[in-house]
Amino acid sequence: MINQLIEKIQKTKAPICVGLDPMLNYIPEHILKRSLTDFGETLQGAADAVWHFNKEIIDHTYDLIPSVKPQIAMYEQFGTAGLTAYDMTVKYCQEKGLLVIGDAKRGDIGSTSGAYAAAHLGKVKIGNTFCRAFNTDFLTVNPYLGTDGIKPFVDVCKEEDKGLFVLVKTSNPSSGEFQDQLTGGRPLYELVAEKVKEWGAGCMEGAYSNIGAVVGATYPEMSAVLRKLMPHTYFLVPGYGAQGGTAEDLKPCFNQDGLGAIVNSSRGIIAAYQQKAYQSFGPEHFAEAARQAVIDMAADINSVL
Amino acid sequence: MINQLIEKIQKTKAPICVGLDPMLNYIPEHILKRSLTDFGETLQGAADAVWHFNKEIIDHTYDLIPSVKPQIAMYEQFGTAGLTAYDMTVKYCQEKGLLVIGDAKRGDIGSTSGAYAAAHLGKVKIGNTFCRAFNTDFLTVNPYLGTDGIKPFVDVCKEEDKGLFVLVKTSNPSSGEFQDQLTGGRPLYELVAEKVKEWGAGCMEGAYSNIGAVVGATYPEMSAVLRKLMPHTYFLVPGYGAQGGTAEDLKPCFNQDGLGAIVNSSRGIIAAYQQKAYQSFGPEHFAEAARQAVIDMAADINSVL
Repeated sequence: MINQLIEKIQKTKAPICVGLDPMLNYIPEHILKRSLTDFGETLQGAADAVWHFNKEIIDHTYDLIPSVKPQIAMYEQFGTAGLTAYDMTVKYCQEKGLLVIGDAKRGDIGSTSGAYAAAHLGKVKIGNTFCRAFNTDFLTVNPYLGTDGIKPFVDVCKEEDKGLFVLVKTSNPSSGEFQDQLTGGRPLYELVAEKVKEWGAGCMEGAYSNIGAVVGATYPEMSAVLRKLMPHTYFLVPGYGAQGGTAEDLKPCFNQDGLGAIVNSSRGIIAAYQQKAYQSFGPEHFAEAARQAVIDMAADINSVL
Repeated sequence: MINQLIEKIQKTKAPICVGLDPMLNYIPEHILKRSLTDFGETLQGAADAVWHFNKEIIDHTYDLIPSVKPQIAMYEQFGTAGLTAYDMTVKYCQEKGLLVIGDAKRGDIGSTSGAYAAAHLGKVKIGNTFCRAFNTDFLTVNPYLGTDGIKPFVDVCKEEDKGLFVLVKTSNPSSGEFQDQLTGGRPLYELVAEKVKEWGAGCMEGAYSNIGAVVGATYPEMSAVLRKLMPHTYFLVPGYGAQGGTAEDLKPCFNQDGLGAIVNSSRGIIAAYQQKAYQSFGPEHFAEAARQAVIDMAADINSVL
């Protein structure tokens, strides 16, 4: 799976994933109004607006990018209607040739992680039939429960040729509270990184493993250490743009081969039309604004590689 | 909210929550067959079987227990059909007077945790209308991202009078891999415990806080330390029964007042009929077997308090 991602990155020359995290206040009035007229001020109405918003963003950006990362929380808040919109979004992106990173940060004890792995990357056996729930290509997972909480995900990745990104060092301000704690002279995130390497060793595809790591753009010195520690691990990098990370901050996430990282931007792309730089597009042309923001982001990142 | 839980525990004399984690192989043939005949070997068919299985378990145990803990992964694996069964289960339990602990172990950066909090404990504003997605009473959350990932959940608990159980020391074999790492001379789980206390200080209801902790039954020495460290924190205790924890192991989780902990059992109750001790009930009477297993579990726990 990681090779498919690398091929698409090389083809598009854009190590980017667009974060499909549609908060309702990102959605232009004309879309929201239509959905709420059709379905009322209900979870169904919100989910319908989210779906139409996503579809237009995808239609205007899919040829420029290798992947998208829908944040499942933004759909879960609209209940099963929202999760239907998530599922429709995943399928539509895949039809358009995009790889989909489900940003779910799941993780639990063994048998439960097994159920999550089946839900998001694998299949469940019902009677004599195999069925799939949310069929994403990659999934983000949380390592707090240790190896037996991650192994069921790794096993499904092997069976299904799918991939993971394990939280190592996150981009948020409090991430250091536990992740930076020194354990035996080195921060916890380094210990997690060692484990990610170990989990990924059996999932190599050429130079990189299907088991990747989440490494925030907002802590570039730490990215540099992690890059050296995990040379064969692909990084999913949040924190660029709206969260404060710059192109220069991203540099340590990449390897000498120009590969090794895929950078996420959510608000910066999908709500570009609300920013000063893209205001002239107007809310009616929000998806064209998103397209321009993708072009600008790719140029920005490529300028430091 | 924690006071409601304590009242129900005192009334039932059972510090128990029944884990509604229906794996398909726990569901008796006669229920599964009927659902798969009605809906085919589909996600919908599996979800229907799960719902009928749960309903019968609830009908036979609700008068004996204060709470249930559905593990959302077991529903998520059946997609939106499964999550509809989760929602129906939550609502049905609440109608029967049970408090529902959504076992979702969610956690992300601030704005995303806000969406999860809205999804599971709070409400979302759609137009001028407030809507609720999965309206559970408590939620389990993962602390790996630190304070700004937890605060949105705490805020919603304050607004809505709901509660949390934050993962501190989990019951699984690998839990020590990161959680037991020494940081400044003490294990990471103690540092997390200190933070849980801090997060919970503004959410006190009498002697206990609405912000609780997950502390596994399988590490009783650690439970004893955590009990002292967090005297006003309610513990949700997994790991009893099928995972190996005994009543004696639970003792350190309780305070002198006989309160302070609620013990989960999933497989041990809902699949009791598959165990030797309850085999005589037979699959047709699986819910009566579950009832007897609840009675036996309560007696077992009360024998050490």
